[in-house]
Amino acid sequence: MTTTLASEYQRIRHTSAAICAPLARDDYQLQSIVETSPPKWHLGHVTWFFETFLLQAFVKNYQPFRAEYNYLFNSYYQTVGSMQPRAERGLMSRPTVEEVYAYRAAIDERMMALLSDADPSQAQAIAARVTLGLHHEQQHQELLYMDIKHNFWRNPLRPIYLPKTLPVQEAAPLEWEMREGGLIESGFDGDSFAYDNERPQHRVWLEPHRLASRLTTNAEYLAFIEDGGYQRAELWLADGWYHRKQHGWQAPLYWEQRDGQWYEFTLHGFESLNLAAPVAHTSYYEADAFARWSGKRLPLEAELEHKLRELPIKGHFTDSNTFHPQAGTGQHYGSLWEWTASPYTAYPRFQPLEGSMGEYNGKFMCNQWVLRGGACITPADHIRPTYRNFFYPHDRWQFSGIRLAEDV
Amino acid sequence: MTTTLASEYQRIRHTSAAICAPLARDDYQLQSIVETSPPKWHLGHVTWFFETFLLQAFVKNYQPFRAEYNYLFNSYYQTVGSMQPRAERGLMSRPTVEEVYAYRAAIDERMMALLSDADPSQAQAIAARVTLGLHHEQQHQELLYMDIKHNFWRNPLRPIYLPKTLPVQEAAPLEWEMREGGLIESGFDGDSFAYDNERPQHRVWLEPHRLASRLTTNAEYLAFIEDGGYQRAELWLADGWYHRKQHGWQAPLYWEQRDGQWYEFTLHGFESLNLAAPVAHTSYYEADAFARWSGKRLPLEAELEHKLRELPIKGHFTDSNTFHPQAGTGQHYGSLWEWTASPYTAYPRFQPLEGSMGEYNGKFMCNQWVLRGGACITPADHIRPTYRNFFYPHDRWQFSGIRLAEDV
Amino acid sequence: MTTTLASEYQRIRHTSAAICAPLARDDYQLQSIVETSPPKWHLGHVTWFFETFLLQAFVKNYQPFRAEYNYLFNSYYQTVGSMQPRAERGLMSRPTVEEVYAYRAAIDERMMALLSDADPSQAQAIAARVTLGLHHEQQHQELLYMDIKHNFWRNPLRPIYLPKTLPVQEAAPLEWEMREGGLIESGFDGDSFAYDNERPQHRVWLEPHRLASRLTTNAEYLAFIEDGGYQRAELWLADGWYHRKQHGWQAPLYWEQRDGQWYEFTLHGFESLNLAAPVAHTSYYEADAFARWSGKRLPLEAELEHKLRELPIKGHFTDSNTFHPQAGTGQHYGSLWEWTASPYTAYPRFQPLEGSMGEYNGKFMCNQWVLRGGACITPADHIRPTYRNFFYPHDRWQFSGIRLAEDV
Amino acid sequence: MTTTLASEYQRIRHTSAAICAPLARDDYQLQSIVETSPPKWHLGHVTWFFETFLLQAFVKNYQPFRAEYNYLFNSYYQTVGSMQPRAERGLMSRPTVEEVYAYRAAIDERMMALLSDADPSQAQAIAARVTLGLHHEQQHQELLYMDIKHNFWRNPLRPIYLPKTLPVQEAAPLEWEMREGGLIESGFDGDSFAYDNERPQHRVWLEPHRLASRLTTNAEYLAFIEDGGYQRAELWLADGWYHRKQHGWQAPLYWEQRDGQWYEFTLHGFESLNLAAPVAHTSYYEADAFARWSGKRLPLEAELEHKLRELPIKGHFTDSNTFHPQAGTGQHYGSLWEWTASPYTAYPRFQPLEGSMGEYNGKFMCNQWVLRGGACITPADHIRPTYRNFFYPHDRWQFSGIRLAEDV
Repeated sequence: MTTTLASEYQRIRHTSAAICAPLARDDYQLQSIVETSPPKWHLGHVTWFFETFLLQAFVKNYQPFRAEYNYLFNSYYQTVGSMQPRAERGLMSRPTVEEVYAYRAAIDERMMALLSDADPSQAQAIAARVTLGLHHEQQHQELLYMDIKHNFWRNPLRPIYLPKTLPVQEAAPLEWEMREGGLIESGFDGDSFAYDNERPQHRVWLEPHRLASRLTTNAEYLAFIEDGGYQRAELWLADGWYHRKQHGWQAPLYWEQRDGQWYEFTLHGFESLNLAAPVAHTSYYEADAFARWSGKRLPLEAELEHKLRELPIKGHFTDSNTFHPQAGTGQHYGSLWEWTASPYTAYPRFQPLEGSMGEYNGKFMCNQWVLRGGACITPADHIRPTYRNFFYPHDRWQFSGIRLAEDV
Repeated sequence: MTTTLASEYQRIRHTSAAICAPLARDDYQLQSIVETSPPKWHLGHVTWFFETFLLQAFVKNYQPFRAEYNYLFNSYYQTVGSMQPRAERGLMSRPTVEEVYAYRAAIDERMMALLSDADPSQAQAIAARVTLGLHHEQQHQELLYMDIKHNFWRNPLRPIYLPKTLPVQEAAPLEWEMREGGLIESGFDGDSFAYDNERPQHRVWLEPHRLASRLTTNAEYLAFIEDGGYQRAELWLADGWYHRKQHGWQAPLYWEQRDGQWYEFTLHGFESLNLAAPVAHTSYYEADAFARWSGKRLPLEAELEHKLRELPIKGHFTDSNTFHPQAGTGQHYGSLWEWTASPYTAYPRFQPLEGSMGEYNGKFMCNQWVLRGGACITPADHIRPTYRNFFYPHDRWQFSGIRLAEDV
Repeated sequence: MTTTLASEYQRIRHTSAAICAPLARDDYQLQSIVETSPPKWHLGHVTWFFETFLLQAFVKNYQPFRAEYNYLFNSYYQTVGSMQPRAERGLMSRPTVEEVYAYRAAIDERMMALLSDADPSQAQAIAARVTLGLHHEQQHQELLYMDIKHNFWRNPLRPIYLPKTLPVQEAAPLEWEMREGGLIESGFDGDSFAYDNERPQHRVWLEPHRLASRLTTNAEYLAFIEDGGYQRAELWLADGWYHRKQHGWQAPLYWEQRDGQWYEFTLHGFESLNLAAPVAHTSYYEADAFARWSGKRLPLEAELEHKLRELPIKGHFTDSNTFHPQAGTGQHYGSLWEWTASPYTAYPRFQPLEGSMGEYNGKFMCNQWVLRGGACITPADHIRPTYRNFFYPHDRWQFSGIRLAEDV
Repeated sequence: MTTTLASEYQRIRHTSAAICAPLARDDYQLQSIVETSPPKWHLGHVTWFFETFLLQAFVKNYQPFRAEYNYLFNSYYQTVGSMQPRAERGLMSRPTVEEVYAYRAAIDERMMALLSDADPSQAQAIAARVTLGLHHEQQHQELLYMDIKHNFWRNPLRPIYLPKTLPVQEAAPLEWEMREGGLIESGFDGDSFAYDNERPQHRVWLEPHRLASRLTTNAEYLAFIEDGGYQRAELWLADGWYHRKQHGWQAPLYWEQRDGQWYEFTLHGFESLNLAAPVAHTSYYEADAFARWSGKRLPLEAELEHKLRELPIKGHFTDSNTFHPQAGTGQHYGSLWEWTASPYTAYPRFQPLEGSMGEYNGKFMCNQWVLRGGACITPADHIRPTYRNFFYPHDRWQFSGIRLAEDV
């Protein structure tokens, strides 16, 4: 096994712990809503992934670290057994944080042994699976930021994850780029890593259209609010309007109005709303209603992918240590995941991975929408133009933003 | 105004009453689940549609038949006012059945006057709106059959809508037709009526594929059940598996097993399951799981539309007076609405109708899936290859069936 | 069998139909909330009671009128089989109203035969059971009024059960009567009919106290509302406050404020609030909060029973054909059921009736509160001082009123 | 201020921390069901009680330790402000455990100052309030045991609070003592501390009856289970039967059957069911059904109080360090709280304490049932014969047991 992979393993595994370093012990166990998971659970689950799909699969007579962990740390892999109900992940006081870190250390040691001693006939299969496991862990790193933010926000004391003064910047002017359309290629076709849902590359017919040069700003979204956007049913999808009413939405998640001023809760504290920064944490329903109010639409995922292929990746990702989207100049991607007008479905001739790994992506191809481009909490080496993220249309705790498109 | 439209109006309006003729007075008010509506409500709502969008819109100083009906019979048109909550449509003992029929008669009379006296400058707009209203009423005629069936099924006495001996037939052999794909046209481009969601015609790239020559039979679906299809999570979409468990699904809606024999509730009575007939009343989740178990997939809506364009419409529609799908020979469509693998979204450059009519279709373009082809409860003159029906993936009370496809 | 019982049977059975005479056919099937039952169901259920507990019990080889009715019309008698879920009584379009009346006629005929032909050795047992069945039917007559009122109120057209001009009267002055207390007898000890829960008579120690000479008026209750009674948590029981907030209570059931004026929905139409009339349709929670705000308390059931024994029954009961409480002069009881401060529990040495009849009263002795005295919708020959009615503390659709007491 | 009270304060405050000493940091934040509270919250809340009702009330210009704590640690005192929703107490990662202990230390210091420096004119009022606060803290000590047990039980790893081998003993024979009844005194009339709900002492008339000499054993309760007790509706209260079905109860809380053997989860581990020990953790519904099956009844609270006055308190309370009821010999009380047949209501002339302290007991006098006698998790100096504990009839996580009575 290459030393590269082993060092990648160590680097990425270390990062998960580093993300949790600012947490109090008490913060590790929070599950503020059913969609979020406790940091402790994330740390255990990604470790369980290596234990189950690498050690159990490739080590002869493997003895599990602790049998009950297969129940506690399985997320949704029906093919490997039953699991703690998702809504009850916050009830796990045991294993303790120390025990979870001990679990991580033990599995890391065994993984190092596997990587150095693997039977050559299995080396390729192991390397592929380890790579998948590392990308999996990076996804959970992003979830850690998302979930910590939501957990903290629910606490009346409003803890701060990382104190930091955020730069106040000008937003770039909004421009509309004409895009030709035609029969294009969509999806991943390289040798490096990509998820099964990005494959196979295939042809898609696109009509000519225009794309916004940057994400929608808080100022632009505020105009929608002030024009009664949250009170005008005709701007909304029926399901969205129903959901909005039921949950009393009047603004994006994390926005709060006090004495006529708007504020936003961030991982760096409770801040005055930066009008120049991209609007974050809207649901698909809100993004769609905003687009309709604007006389525009959201882009299709193929339209957006086609554009991203042309852009440099220079969004401020996790290496910037700024976990809130900033107003930017020039075109790039990576401040916020961009909602698309495309439901998350299978590409033509899509084949899920074999066995349990087939549960990774394919079974979620219903009721969700694709987002593209990565966000400020995405590891920079985890993103690519063909990457398909997906959330339910009502979800808001992910770092999502809005880029408009229009027909020509 | 042409006499044709007036006579069409009278014919279609009369049909709604005819569908209700076999009902007892007591049956008019039932709402067995939130998705269904009482027959009395359907009869009032379609009448309200004409009163609101024709008489109110085109008759000067129009006096409403009864002001409260705008609240009681509005379905979901937010732009014309508030409405009785959907879940409480079954609580309307007043207006009585007689009063609803009196309402129908009064509005019909006023409509006849409008049609004969309309200002020539408005004649075209009126004709277009009347045509929409008649198609709307035909949609509710189909809903009447669906809803009456569900209402009756929930009653332990199991009433029969129309006593009838159903023919027992052989199913045609299942054949696989090779389809070339390429850049095809999809959507409606004619002069006759079509809904806004079928427009505009546009290009779609299709990969080569094969299509089943007929719908899946009960026998074929039973093999899936007997192979543990309802117990094997790996065959299901995640949301589908959760829904299946929560609702205890073990077979399609209306199937019952007694002493080892399978039966099916129909509008013609409680029948032994006809193995040769197409399987009906599966959700998208079940159709998708069945396809996966079969090693196939469901067709895209464009694939299916392309095929339907080549077929004669010779399904047994409502004019057959047989309200249950029958095994057929030869290729055709119209026994059951066919689930597709396409979420219901907007076509490129889709434009909803102006004003309140824009609420008809566009606002439902989220979380639902397209079905194509019509069913045995669809009026024969209401269907066309470009017609897009849509339901939530868990819905089962519509007359839905399964046609398989496969990649090549 | 005495002719008296047979004629009582016919009189009381006839009354149930008479109560329903003003209904439209459509009204028979309504169940506006889970607590109410459709009039059709009441008519069938009381008939089923005679069929099940008289005909089935005392007629050899009895053939049920229709087997499924045992499921459809059983209310809560677990010992005689399973039953239609309570929340789904409104889904019974079949049997139709005609079929239910035919059922009543058939059972009445069989009952007449039983009463005239009964074996002398069983005559006494039969007479006792028939008497119970008639009291049972009278209870459902009261429920018919209650449920029709609620059903009608939910309909935006606000139907009127019986058009009638209600007299506007002066309320009698409120006086406080000193009551001595001591060791008194409570409960029924006569030869005539009483429910098992009124027996056995037993001793209770009462402290001296004062009782209000009449029920609380709307004017007095309005002062509570206007003093912020519904906004001051300290006046409420904890469960009551929670319930109030959850359901948004701001006034008694059926009260509505329009343009600053208070109105009340009654069986005789939507009326201006009569300030002199007794306040009706408060829950126990509201009655208790009002008493606390008044610096008083509700009376114990033994205190109230002791008082009722001294009073003439001259409330306006169903024979007055006025189904709304009226301001009265002089002391009496019967305008409204009076909430007591006594939870509904068993008297010392309480013995439920044998067999299924034991399910009539005893199994409800938990979570409910006793009300005494009858109401304007109670048949006059159905009430007595020892009668124990009971409802949950949050129930409001019964005709309940407030009489205050105080410690001395 | 007497040194006695100060040392009592220190002793009782210390005990709360001692109870939590065996917990991992992770255990402090668990709220397994809405009824339980996290240990961290208990520790904070009892401290807030002293800060709010002593320091705020009696110290001039008092500066709160931290303003947000009034929201976070208020349980249900509506008169002192709004509060964290009960169901979300488990979401408090902040304050951390350290911060809560720091809060305790700071308030203790301020309390010591108040106790030593109090104005003589206020000394009596302060002493009374401190005494109440200490009894309040003892109640929460009992809740800590209850809640920790439930929290641990929900964890698949089944943590052990205190490893200990429980003695296996013989149960004393069940004897029936004849009790005369008559006009007795009930309630507290001494000079020492008692809650407002135990006052005033008043007369109650009791009928002659018999009382069981000891609590029902697991063996006796098992006979009820094996006789189909959980399947026979006729044994249950209607609300109890509904609740049982809805929650699938087949045995008391914490019982589990594995391979035909019964086990019980305890604070000392997962144990084989000790047949001689008293049955614990039944709801009122189960206790009542068991009594009915036994042909007996539960005792009234006055009957039980009358008996307890005659018994020595020698139950094994918290000082025994055995937190599970043990089979005992001789009559005593204190193994388990004993369900009574008495709903929790006000005594004649009951007066709640003034001001916010009036919210302590009185507002819960609805829908709950009285339990008497204390349990193995009750501090021995916290119990007395007049003590009225109360729970909802469906509650099971409290340490409740069954003592039978019968009429004569």
